[in-house]
Amino acid sequence: MPRLNLDEARRRLTEARVGYLATTRPDGRPHIVPIVFALDGDDMFSIADPKPKAGLDLLRHRNIRANPAISLLVDAYDERWERLWWVRVDGTARVVDEGAERDTAIHLLRTKYPQYRTWTTPFGAATLIHVERIASWALEETDPAD
Amino acid sequence: MPRLNLDEARRRLTEARVGYLATTRPDGRPHIVPIVFALDGDDMFSIADPKPKAGLDLLRHRNIRANPAISLLVDAYDERWERLWWVRVDGTARVVDEGAERDTAIHLLRTKYPQYRTWTTPFGAATLIHVERIASWALEETDPAD
Repeated sequence: MPRLNLDEARRRLTEARVGYLATTRPDGRPHIVPIVFALDGDDMFSIADPKPKAGLDLLRHRNIRANPAISLLVDAYDERWERLWWVRVDGTARVVDEGAERDTAIHLLRTKYPQYRTWTTPFGAATLIHVERIASWALEETDPAD
Repeated sequence: MPRLNLDEARRRLTEARVGYLATTRPDGRPHIVPIVFALDGDDMFSIADPKPKAGLDLLRHRNIRANPAISLLVDAYDERWERLWWVRVDGTARVVDEGAERDTAIHLLRTKYPQYRTWTTPFGAATLIHVERIASWALEETDPAD
């Protein structure tokens, strides 16, 4: 199966603006949600929006607290299918309600996403992902020198 | 939580060019892969590309054969976050190796995706998804009359 070289896969993962986070529900069914995230080495960070009405007890958080295994995908759909590619992270996640790690998440996310810089409402809990494996797929071979 | 009305969610699901399919591995970890698909009522269809070297025994198929629960997401990322939305299907999937249902999948996919029409190599197995629930999220309210 054609793959991206690891440097290229990491570059695309770092630059991706959105990712799709899959977790497993306590009953074994999968759950999936889009997230914005920041990558720093083998650590990925995302954070819950404030949702006063719904509370901050998101389903993804409940799933992760019960089963930390996650899979996160980034891609870029293109009608020219020869250009299709994806990068997938398999890893483990933790929900961090407060403290230095959550502060780091907010800092990294504000650096990557200007949209977060103007937010004055409090954020929710952070999700910290430890990257254990990076898989990728691409139809077109990429130049390792890219 | 703001939602799309069901007609609008179905319309966006029907028109989406790519979706993200989450399944559960036998060990409970989630798996995720992008797919192209066609929706017909409460049935969704996708098909495996021919991959002679790798065989057609895709991980998603092995997962579905062991645990049919799936979750499929479509979205459209936009830097104007007030325009973000997603639609998610929860359902059950079956892998169909041959026969009339697979022929229907090929027909519907060729109707939606011109890219499939010129393929002369044989396709792999089809994945048939029965839609059990459609969930959605959107920051901007949509007009039910849209």
